[in-house]
Amino acid sequence: MLYVVGIGPGGEEHLTKKAEEILKNVDLIVCYKGYKKFVERFNKPIYTTGMKKEIERVEYALRESKDKDVALVSSGDATIYGLASLAYELNEKKNYNVEIEVIPGITSASSCSAILGAPLNHDFVVLSLSDLLTPLDIILKRVRCALEGDFVIAIYNPMSKSRKEPFLKTIEIVKRYAEKNNTNYIIGIVKNAGRKNEEYKIITINELINNLEKYMEFIDMNTTLIIGNSNTKIIDGKMVTPRGYLNKYKIE
Amino acid sequence: MLYVVGIGPGGEEHLTKKAEEILKNVDLIVCYKGYKKFVERFNKPIYTTGMKKEIERVEYALRESKDKDVALVSSGDATIYGLASLAYELNEKKNYNVEIEVIPGITSASSCSAILGAPLNHDFVVLSLSDLLTPLDIILKRVRCALEGDFVIAIYNPMSKSRKEPFLKTIEIVKRYAEKNNTNYIIGIVKNAGRKNEEYKIITINELINNLEKYMEFIDMNTTLIIGNSNTKIIDGKMVTPRGYLNKYKIE
Ligand SMILES: C[S@@+](CC[C@H](N)C(=O)[O-])C[C@H]1O[C@@H](n2cnc3c(N)ncnc32)[C@H](O)[C@@H]1O
Ligand SMILES: C[S@@+](CC[C@H](N)C(=O)[O-])C[C@H]1O[C@@H](n2cnc3c(N)ncnc32)[C@H](O)[C@@H]1O
Repeated sequence: MLYVVGIGPGGEEHLTKKAEEILKNVDLIVCYKGYKKFVERFNKPIYTTGMKKEIERVEYALRESKDKDVALVSSGDATIYGLASLAYELNEKKNYNVEIEVIPGITSASSCSAILGAPLNHDFVVLSLSDLLTPLDIILKRVRCALEGDFVIAIYNPMSKSRKEPFLKTIEIVKRYAEKNNTNYIIGIVKNAGRKNEEYKIITINELINNLEKYMEFIDMNTTLIIGNSNTKIIDGKMVTPRGYLNKYKIE
Repeated sequence: MLYVVGIGPGGEEHLTKKAEEILKNVDLIVCYKGYKKFVERFNKPIYTTGMKKEIERVEYALRESKDKDVALVSSGDATIYGLASLAYELNEKKNYNVEIEVIPGITSASSCSAILGAPLNHDFVVLSLSDLLTPLDIILKRVRCALEGDFVIAIYNPMSKSRKEPFLKTIEIVKRYAEKNNTNYIIGIVKNAGRKNEEYKIITINELINNLEKYMEFIDMNTTLIIGNSNTKIIDGKMVTPRGYLNKYKIE
């Protein structure tokens, strides 16, 4: 049996009871090599592969699942830019006939939202800027649709050392909407949420553009950005998107 | 101190360690009356109010937080259509000067995604159809933007006994896009995720339209819908949105 398990941002504290229980009971854990440190405490055999070796990793997990209980581990939630869909696809395509169960985890949008305040408290988009598997024109079209709908936007995979173009083009589009709508969008940046080197910043699109180099040095592969909608504000140093209660029910 | 805590879909299994620990240690729990059953096991004083009494509930929690540790509990994640932003807003507006910390929880999109398979495995929108606090024209504009961007769409608050219009109008828009794009969108419907009466269905937009009455009887306030994107498919009875690995790396 194959359990596809989301472990949340990394630290133990945001693991669910169910995920903990599964990881305690499986025979084998399979994960990205960078996440080995988060699952070592379960004292199980661990098989890891590096980046871009996702197919190999999932196939190994499926093969071993035929006669073992295996946990294929993703950070955050396994169905959000994780390996759950690839497991279902390969299971069918290669006729492994393995039973698969997904165990949900705290995704980065949630863990980062809690750190920033309450930026996701109205309709939002979750978007990856990685153009490895998605053409850049589709990514940028989605950025425009998200801004057109005045959604809050949670951005995963903002950039890597060798991949900066999608980020720069996205920022340009946000800037255009900011000018058009006369809105200095608030942007929350969270790095290493739930890990010991956790850091966050709350800025605006103008601040980002005026100090682009500095922020681009800060942002890495373990960073999530949340761009507010036109109502998002800063309250006591936190980023908050109102749900609308105080407009509806006048409070004096 | 005020902890705004997301407890996930309801059952204990999807509670995080951190949320469990906080609920064990606070002096008072404040929540919607329907959720009392999920927090009774902590043996704490519990203050509840009903629907549309959110402001009263949050003010009570803030007042009590001045000299107690209080947990304001939301289902799912407290920053996703929960009371986190209202807590920050009222804390400032009424000068409570309370320290607030948000504890993330498994949101319905994640818990329902795991039950359905892996429908959220590409860019997605989270959208509420409740027009109590958001004008209907903004909701419908967001539906169009989401479809225009070919996002997967997770729909919260799909309808209540007295509020069906936003749902009917949304379905009409989805139908128009289905015809335009010649795509029979796959739709997952999950009711009471993580609770003992959990149920789900995986259908298509055509099936939904052809049996609208039947499905509208099924859908209630504890139901989340996930509408697939143009690539979402059904694999072994599960709803799966490919990330794109198998297009990029040809597998024979
Ligand atoms: C391949 S995706 C995996 C997402 C994961 N499955 C989830 O649900 O959060 C990797 C991206 O997730 C985000 N991410 C993962 N862990 C993070 C953390 N601890 N802090 C901030 N962002 C994180 C970053 O945007 C990163 O580029
Ligand atoms: C006011 S919102 C609260 C959302 C919650 N804060 C979250 O993050 O999931 C209520 C809506 O959440 C969804 N929901 C909450 N609990 C659910 C469950 N157990 N199963 C399915 N959907 C649920 C439904 O769409 C419901 O109408």
